[in-house]
This record gives sequence, structure tokens and C-alpha cells, in this order.
Amino acid sequence: AGGGLAATLAFPSVLAASKPDWMAEPISGYEGVKGDDIKARMEAMIMQVQADFCRALEQEEADGSVGSAPVKFKVDRWIRKEGGGGITCVMQEGEVFEKAGVNISVVHGHLPPAAVAQMRARGKQMGEGVLPFTALGISSVIHPRNPMIPTIHFNYRYFEVQEPNGECQWWFGGGTDLTPYYLDENDVRHFHGTLKKACDKHNAKLYPKFKAWCDDYFNVTHRGERRGVGGIFFDDFDEPNQEKAFEFVTSCANSVVPSYVPLVKKHKKDGYGYAERQWQLLRRGRYVEFNLIYDRGTKFGLYTPGARYESILMSLPLTARWEYMHAPEPGSKEAKLTEILKNPKDWI
Amino acid sequence: AGGGLAATLAFPSVLAASKPDWMAEPISGYEGVKGDDIKARMEAMIMQVQADFCRALEQEEADGSVGSAPVKFKVDRWIRKEGGGGITCVMQEGEVFEKAGVNISVVHGHLPPAAVAQMRARGKQMGEGVLPFTALGISSVIHPRNPMIPTIHFNYRYFEVQEPNGECQWWFGGGTDLTPYYLDENDVRHFHGTLKKACDKHNAKLYPKFKAWCDDYFNVTHRGERRGVGGIFFDDFDEPNQEKAFEFVTSCANSVVPSYVPLVKKHKKDGYGYAERQWQLLRRGRYVEFNLIYDRGTKFGLYTPGARYESILMSLPLTARWEYMHAPEPGSKEAKLTEILKNPKDWI
Repeated sequence: AGGGLAATLAFPSVLAASKPDWMAEPISGYEGVKGDDIKARMEAMIMQVQADFCRALEQEEADGSVGSAPVKFKVDRWIRKEGGGGITCVMQEGEVFEKAGVNISVVHGHLPPAAVAQMRARGKQMGEGVLPFTALGISSVIHPRNPMIPTIHFNYRYFEVQEPNGECQWWFGGGTDLTPYYLDENDVRHFHGTLKKACDKHNAKLYPKFKAWCDDYFNVTHRGERRGVGGIFFDDFDEPNQEKAFEFVTSCANSVVPSYVPLVKKHKKDGYGYAERQWQLLRRGRYVEFNLIYDRGTKFGLYTPGARYESILMSLPLTARWEYMHAPEPGSKEAKLTEILKNPKDWI
Repeated sequence: AGGGLAATLAFPSVLAASKPDWMAEPISGYEGVKGDDIKARMEAMIMQVQADFCRALEQEEADGSVGSAPVKFKVDRWIRKEGGGGITCVMQEGEVFEKAGVNISVVHGHLPPAAVAQMRARGKQMGEGVLPFTALGISSVIHPRNPMIPTIHFNYRYFEVQEPNGECQWWFGGGTDLTPYYLDENDVRHFHGTLKKACDKHNAKLYPKFKAWCDDYFNVTHRGERRGVGGIFFDDFDEPNQEKAFEFVTSCANSVVPSYVPLVKKHKKDGYGYAERQWQLLRRGRYVEFNLIYDRGTKFGLYTPGARYESILMSLPLTARWEYMHAPEPGSKEAKLTEILKNPKDWI
């Protein structure tokens, strides 16, 4: 498929021979992601992560299904009239995965004033006027059917804004976090351990900082509970330089499969009953509360003109439940999880 | 129980003989709601509306149950440490009502700066500094089990702010609106007709204005759909004077039972199947989206320090569902409802 030496060096495993086996053609086209430019490399990286993760989940679904035709990801490649587009992969009503979404978006446009205000509010210096921007990212939420398998969420993104003075501001953001319904401490240690290893390759200070940031961010404030047992979360990341920052983000994104798929394998045949299912549905209600009330990405998405809301809201579970004044029995497994959500701890 | 001539004239049917048969003791006490003061009269009015509505629903539940002990409202009277409190009545997992909440709150405190900013944003002139306020209201959402019975929501409230210059600003707000899962035009005409009659007693201009306001307000913007088939909605209402405005609000609040209970009676034994239930759950997902993303009352509530979130979130359904890219079959009953939600119409 060509691409020359530069592209071959940049993605030896991916572009060397022929078209890579991604879920769809990249929004910028196969040729468009071959350059040395950071945007091209980021797009190729998230395409590969999407393909790796979706295929690993499809494999788990196939191994867990009794039917002859296991559910697979439905792939929607969509173009945004205002610029850019995305590739949304959703697997729904599987035997292992009740709803799994892995979305890529590549958006060019002009920042709406509300978005500029939000960025300034968190300390960004931004020029006045209408600011052209590009946002590239992968975002995913997996809701398994078995309550013994945790839900995972991850998001890795690159953001670039053209300033009126001709300068370009850029930064990375992202994170991976885990939301169990029942606490298996070995699972949580495996998960955090995998993320820590990915971070430590770059700088041993990053994991503790981004672990704490994650606990702060995924806070269902009105309930005084974290959404789950955390992971890592970061934004405005640009250190020590663009090349190293990209390597760090790539390393985090590549740690998603090894952090999570072993937990799916381990628990997908666990037994559970009506009570465990009801608790899972209630916890999913809290997940919905966080995503719709507090999550910055969801808000930014829904308020962006021409937003593809189906891709943003694919993060919501297939089913959820709200009971008035539900409280777990003292001493129960449900109470044990709740205790950890109210008082996040260090796992490593 | 005493109270004297003034109270007897103000609430002849309620306080004449003994303690009224409300769901609990009012937050301001039985003596505290006997005065001529607007706050006392508003509190007594909403206590009565809560009792009338809860008892009417319990009656429907009892008539619709095959079991020997029909579900009844659980009554929680709660005190807010920062001032005031409330009476939350919830009936859950009934045979007719899957989740029904009717909440009263009587809150004294100081307006948080975010609330002042929100009020200024909608045109209120407010002084600087920490502003003492009182908010009294009734709020209710009823989620029936049978998808042929619509969901109803209503809220009637009185708000008072003490300005630094010694003046007192006051206004009423509220509304009643209907969210069917299947469109029965006779139901919608009965519902709107009952509200119109309640409005017309005061001023024939009010129903058309508040009907349009309702369609504007209950807008799930990202989907381009209204939440339901509307009703009435108003805020900052203070005309022509406090006495007349209170009479208007009382008339609206008293129209809740006759607008809705006949629809419950009419449909509670209708047949339905799996497909209708699934559609109801999907529509409830949209209900959750509106309440958590856009509803001003929910936001104001959850961001108020010391908010009793269980009373605010009782509006959420027991169960809800989100499917990626769900679209009703063209020409189906589900498509017919969706069409109306995208293009609200006049019913009278």
C-alpha cells in the first residue's frame, strides 16, 4: 500500500505491507494517517487500539456464547457536516457483553464560546474570537452482563487550538477507570498494576498523580461516592514534549486490553442470581447519574453543534434502575463495595 | 384544634374541626400553617394537594391489585440541617404504579452564588451579597407500570428572596405535563382541556402562553424531541397581585387529580406485550436524559448544599433502557408518538 520509509518507521507493524485491519477506513483516509504529523500518528494509534480492543472483546463474546452466531460489533462510520467524523463500534445484547461501545472521533471545527469558557475556567490561556480546533480521540465504555465482571471506561484524546496570534496550543488527555459491582481486590490490583506499569515506563511520578486525579474526577458529588475504584485520569498533558507525551498516551492506550480482558476471562462464567443482577442495575443508575450530570466529555459533546448524540450516549448501559432510598445490608458484599466508593484507597 | 376565625375562613374544609388528614405533620407544624401569611397558606395548600393526590393513587393501586395487601405510599418527613425540610412520599413496585413520588419541600437558607447567577441569567434583578430565601413547593413524577398509562409530572412552588435593601422579591412557578408512551389523542385532549379550564378561570391568555412555554422547556435538545405532549409551565409569575397569583396556582394544583386519575382508570387494565414494555423503557431513558441534563429544578436541587438527593432523584423511573441507534418502524404506533414529540401541536 506504499507510504514510504517515514510511515514504515512510524508504524512498522501496521502499515508495512498492506492496509491495516482496522474496523473501518480512518476518517482522514488510509493515506491521511501515514504522515509524521502528530494528528496523523494519533489517528493511526487510536484506530489500532479500537481494532485491538474490539477484536479482543469479540473473541470473549464468541468463547462465551452458546449460540452458533455470536454477536459482533456493528461498525458505523459517520461524517460530520461541520468537519471530520467518526467510527462508532457497538456490540449490543451479547451473552457476555450487554452493551459495549468503542468510539473514535476526529473533529475539526470552531470552538463554541461555552467550550472556550470551560477551558479558561480550568486555567487555559485562550485568545479572543472564534478559535479553530481539532480534537481526535477514542472513547469506550463496556457494560458486561455478568455482575461479577466490572465495567471499564477509557478515553484518550489529542486537542489542538489555533490561536489568533498564529500559535498552536496542543495537549493530550485521557484515562482508564474500572467500575466493579462486587469488589474483587485481586482484580483491582491487577487493573491498577497494569496502568501503573504503563505510566512508570515514562515517569514514576505520573501514576500516583493521575490515580488521585481519577478519584477526584469520577465523583458522584451529590451521593458522596466515587463512580468506581478509579484508575488514571489526566488532562492538559504536554510534558516533557509532544513526542514523549504521545508515547506516554500510546502506552496508556495499549494497556487497556491487558488491564481488562483477563478480568472478563476470569469472571464470565461466574454464577450469580437475581439479587446480584438487581444490584448491578442500581449501580448502573449511578453510572448514568455521573455521565449525564457531571462528565465534562458528555457535556462538551452534547453542547457541540452537530454532535452525533448516539455516539456520545453509547456510554449509557442497556438497562439501569433507581430505587428510592436503597441501602445495602450492613456487612454485605454490596456494603463492602459502597464503603470503598465512599473512601477510595491506594491499591499498590 | 383551634386556629381561630382567620384560619377557619382561609381553609374552611381543612382546618375547621381537627387536624387535617395530611400525609404527615407540615414542616412548619400544624400551628405554623394556619396564618394569613402567603407562606403559611402555600404550605397548607401543597400539603392538601399531596394528600389528595397520594390517596387517589393509592385508591387506584388498591383497585388494580390482585394481592391482599396493595402497596401504599412510604412517607418520609425529613428536616434539613440548614433550615426547613420536607415530606417525601414514594410508592414503589406496585401493580399499577412502578414508582410514584410526591414530594413537598420547605426550604429556608441563603441562595448559593450559582443560583443567583442562574436567576440573573433569566432576567431577575438581584442585589449583591448573600441573599436569604424561602422556597416552598410540591413536586411529583408518576411512572405507571402499564405502558398505556402516561407518566405525569407536576411542580408548584413559591419563592421569596430578601434583598439587601429590605425589599422582598416573590414569585410563583410551576406546571403539569404528560408523557405518554403511546398516543391516545382523547387522553391528551382531556389532559390539556382540564389544565385549560383551570387557567381560564383566571385569565384566558394564560393557557396558550404557558402551553407554549411548556413545549419550549421540556425539550430534549440533543435529540430534537420534546419529553412528552406538554401541558403548562410557568415561572416568575406574580400577576396581577399576590392574592390572585396564589389563587391561580391553587387552581392549577387542584387540577392535577382530575387531569390524570381518569387516564389511570381508563388504561390500567389495557393489554400490552414485550414490545410495548421495551418501548416504555426506552422512552424512560429519554426521561432520565431530560431530568439529569436539562432540568433546572434538578440542577438547582443537586447543587444546593445539604440537598436531600433521594427526594430530588425520586423523579427517576425504577427501570430505564438505552439502545444504540434505536428507531421505531416507519408507520408504527411508536413512530406516531415520536412524530408528535418532534412537532408539538395544539390539542384544543
